[in-house]
Amino acid sequence: MSMIKLILNCRDHKFKKIEMTAKKTRTAITPTREEDFSAWYQAVVSGADMAENSVVRGCMVIKPWGFGIWENIQKILDKKIKDTGHENAYFPLLIPKSFFQKEADHIEGFATECAVVTHTRLENQDGILVPAGKLEEEYIIRPTSEMIIGESFSRWVQSYRDLPLKINQWANVMRWEMRTRMFLRTSEFLWQEGHTAHETEQEAREETEIMLQEYKDLLENYLAMPVLEGEKTPEERFPGGENTYTVETMMQDKKALQAGTSHYLGQNFSKSLNISFQTRDEKEDFAHTTSWGVSTRLIGGIIMSHADDDGLVLPPRIAPQHIVILPFLKKDEKVNAKILEEAKNLKNNLENLKFSGDINIEVKLDTSEKQGKNWDWVRKGIPLRIALGERDIEKGGFMLSRRDKPANEKEFVSFDEISNISEILDEMQKNIYIKAQNFQKENIKEISSLEELKEYFSKNNNKNSGFALCYADAEVNEEREKLLKELKITARCIPYKYNRYSNGGKGNEEGKCIFSGKNTITKIVYARAY
Amino acid sequence: MSMIKLILNCRDHKFKKIEMTAKKTRTAITPTREEDFSAWYQAVVSGADMAENSVVRGCMVIKPWGFGIWENIQKILDKKIKDTGHENAYFPLLIPKSFFQKEADHIEGFATECAVVTHTRLENQDGILVPAGKLEEEYIIRPTSEMIIGESFSRWVQSYRDLPLKINQWANVMRWEMRTRMFLRTSEFLWQEGHTAHETEQEAREETEIMLQEYKDLLENYLAMPVLEGEKTPEERFPGGENTYTVETMMQDKKALQAGTSHYLGQNFSKSLNISFQTRDEKEDFAHTTSWGVSTRLIGGIIMSHADDDGLVLPPRIAPQHIVILPFLKKDEKVNAKILEEAKNLKNNLENLKFSGDINIEVKLDTSEKQGKNWDWVRKGIPLRIALGERDIEKGGFMLSRRDKPANEKEFVSFDEISNISEILDEMQKNIYIKAQNFQKENIKEISSLEELKEYFSKNNNKNSGFALCYADAEVNEEREKLLKELKITARCIPYKYNRYSNGGKGNEEGKCIFSGKNTITKIVYARAY
Repeated sequence: MSMIKLILNCRDHKFKKIEMTAKKTRTAITPTREEDFSAWYQAVVSGADMAENSVVRGCMVIKPWGFGIWENIQKILDKKIKDTGHENAYFPLLIPKSFFQKEADHIEGFATECAVVTHTRLENQDGILVPAGKLEEEYIIRPTSEMIIGESFSRWVQSYRDLPLKINQWANVMRWEMRTRMFLRTSEFLWQEGHTAHETEQEAREETEIMLQEYKDLLENYLAMPVLEGEKTPEERFPGGENTYTVETMMQDKKALQAGTSHYLGQNFSKSLNISFQTRDEKEDFAHTTSWGVSTRLIGGIIMSHADDDGLVLPPRIAPQHIVILPFLKKDEKVNAKILEEAKNLKNNLENLKFSGDINIEVKLDTSEKQGKNWDWVRKGIPLRIALGERDIEKGGFMLSRRDKPANEKEFVSFDEISNISEILDEMQKNIYIKAQNFQKENIKEISSLEELKEYFSKNNNKNSGFALCYADAEVNEEREKLLKELKITARCIPYKYNRYSNGGKGNEEGKCIFSGKNTITKIVYARAY
Repeated sequence: MSMIKLILNCRDHKFKKIEMTAKKTRTAITPTREEDFSAWYQAVVSGADMAENSVVRGCMVIKPWGFGIWENIQKILDKKIKDTGHENAYFPLLIPKSFFQKEADHIEGFATECAVVTHTRLENQDGILVPAGKLEEEYIIRPTSEMIIGESFSRWVQSYRDLPLKINQWANVMRWEMRTRMFLRTSEFLWQEGHTAHETEQEAREETEIMLQEYKDLLENYLAMPVLEGEKTPEERFPGGENTYTVETMMQDKKALQAGTSHYLGQNFSKSLNISFQTRDEKEDFAHTTSWGVSTRLIGGIIMSHADDDGLVLPPRIAPQHIVILPFLKKDEKVNAKILEEAKNLKNNLENLKFSGDINIEVKLDTSEKQGKNWDWVRKGIPLRIALGERDIEKGGFMLSRRDKPANEKEFVSFDEISNISEILDEMQKNIYIKAQNFQKENIKEISSLEELKEYFSKNNNKNSGFALCYADAEVNEEREKLLKELKITARCIPYKYNRYSNGGKGNEEGKCIFSGKNTITKIVYARAY
């Protein structure tokens, strides 16, 4: 790259003003991550204008900037889902209550927090609207769709020729949560849920793994979030399933966020829902099913992985827009007309570029009269900001600021060098990932005794310590549960290479379980989690 | 085009078999449109594997082929919505009951058929799940989102600088319908709902019109459905709105289908929801709002506009896939390997083509062992079917069948002529539209007296007569309502050019209202409708 770097020493009036603002408020987000991570998170969401709490208990409004990120996630993942041979469909929002009685473990997992529909109309009684038209059987707003989709599968699957059946649904779901936080835990959220049925266990297990790897690719290569992939321990499994696989991510406060899960459900659901088929040798068997999903929670993950004390930082591949052009207009209308014309030309030229191969560069030209709009865009985490004033145009270029560098750093780029922008966006994507990866690496600690575990998680009372990786068998017992509760930690996953279940533990060294003292080849990651 | 036309005279064994099947069943769909339009419709939906009724009252399952059409509608319309300056967002599924009390007319329109959420969990009482956690205030599953989105708008809009606010939402909604029909009228359906707020009445009215024109373009140029655009009469307006504009379409049974509506809501909703702003001259005013939507109902419209007695007929621009390749495999594995290789090459070469400018050609290679799969694809309405056998390959090509021609008609196309496929798809799109347009033209009748109107709608007891266009003022009175009810017709719209409201009637000739005998320049279209 042949760019002329020009750190401005407050020579330009406009830039001076901005730097002064920056000095005055210190950071664009208050409080900082260090001061109060949880309050910082809410301030980032609101400062970036991504979402807001609604009048409906525990539900949020996803505003255009937040929804734009979700649309990009959908676009990338939908392609992956289709490329791996799945088809989209749509199933009812409501599930008859009796369906929840078909699968015992599944009820326990979801019945405690669900929206129950009991009436079919409102009646006006002296000016007050009263529920009327009571239903014989109540409906539940789907918390997940295994039961209702499985019911269709039971009719669609007759013979091995109908298998595999690979369906995905983009939908809203509801789980009535008591303590909610925007994107991370809301009563209603948006997600995709894949549901597949297979002839054999092996094929279903392969499906579970394929989709987990697609999630890993989405997270690492688009959302720039390094993952720790592994299996959930028995107590953390999907209610009613056989095995749950997860992609776990580390937030900047060192807590874990479960970013996506993929479940091998065995024949449990196919037995309770009667998804049976005639086999190749003309016998009857039950299908092996899977399900897998990611949700708008990922947006919370992006924020907590990358945002800083100035607001959101968006990996370019997931940003709704990549560049904002901020023209500096003056009182002289003739000059302004020229600046606006140059700004429009620049927008068009930039929009003809692509990055990361095939992503169109999206450019916003912000001509609003709003005060402090440069900082609005910093808080929104747009990857690049372009300042365009009369003097820049005279010099034949513009001032460029990168969101992965300090907010008041700028460099001059000449108009004939704009093709470099593609490289810059790719470089930013990489940098953001590497930063998160280093952070994750630095905060995973190998723990070799119970004492060490206790010390690790209690040394900073108000801070989190990171992830602990230790030899531990995956058996559950009361004593261990009690201890984990005291330390406020949970088993996040058994990373693949330490999992005796996934690979039979081949090639792993044995160690002593820090809880039982017994020999094991299994290692478990423990952490505080969202 | 230089294609060699070769109508096969049953010389090819495989084709012979197909023609015999065709003869035997006469049509692929039973009953025919003529015999029983309503039963034919259900048979087309099921024969094309588009959707099925679900266990949830009045709700359907949209299967992949039906959902693929919806995905294409979404893709086309979403681009239009964004190109006209709107942003997508997402608002809560549930609406507090009290919101329905804010707008009197709006309650009347929607409260009579809605899903009411009254409890927040299920409790296990002796093995039976019972609703528990009663809510203080009930929630309604959104039948439409004016109220909940308006609540956000009231906070987002402070000054004229915040206007226009142009938001769209893709969502599921519920209206508890008593008599349902797949796609046309279901308790839950998918749609987009646009909601905008503006500084002036003029700007809001322009918005209403812009979106109606986008719907018209979607319908005519993609769904190949000619529309009659106009204003709804007062009694057919959106509850609580000022003016409703509509795109009405004619189905093959000559009934009308309201395909999309765009509402100018005036200041009614902004007053009840307090969407007020500071004007340019520092006064307080209420915003002028609009809303507009189309739904999965459009898919029902596509079916009833174009499908024939062999099943669905899809306009290429909206088809989930454009071509199916059906290789004729034999017992000889070596021959089959060659056929499959050619089929894959052909698929790749076809997929490199585009039509209508920028639509990628999607090709399905169907190697399933299923009997009668050619007819399955006819019923699905895929635009083109390619039969590929050993003999075709020897001749250097394949046999092509078009869905807009009789099912057993085929022509030989050589491999080096495949670029013509793009033209064929464009031609089919045009033909399907022209056919529907001619049908509509032939079935709109100018009516000049009440007697004529009565005769027109009663002459065929079990058939519909088409659309009646007549001079009529848009006033509502009991007598007229009674008459329309007797004739089972409704006012569909006041076509633009006959609307004294839209253009002040400039340039229109006056006539006598067939009901009141008074002079009027307004004409109204009456018809039976879905």
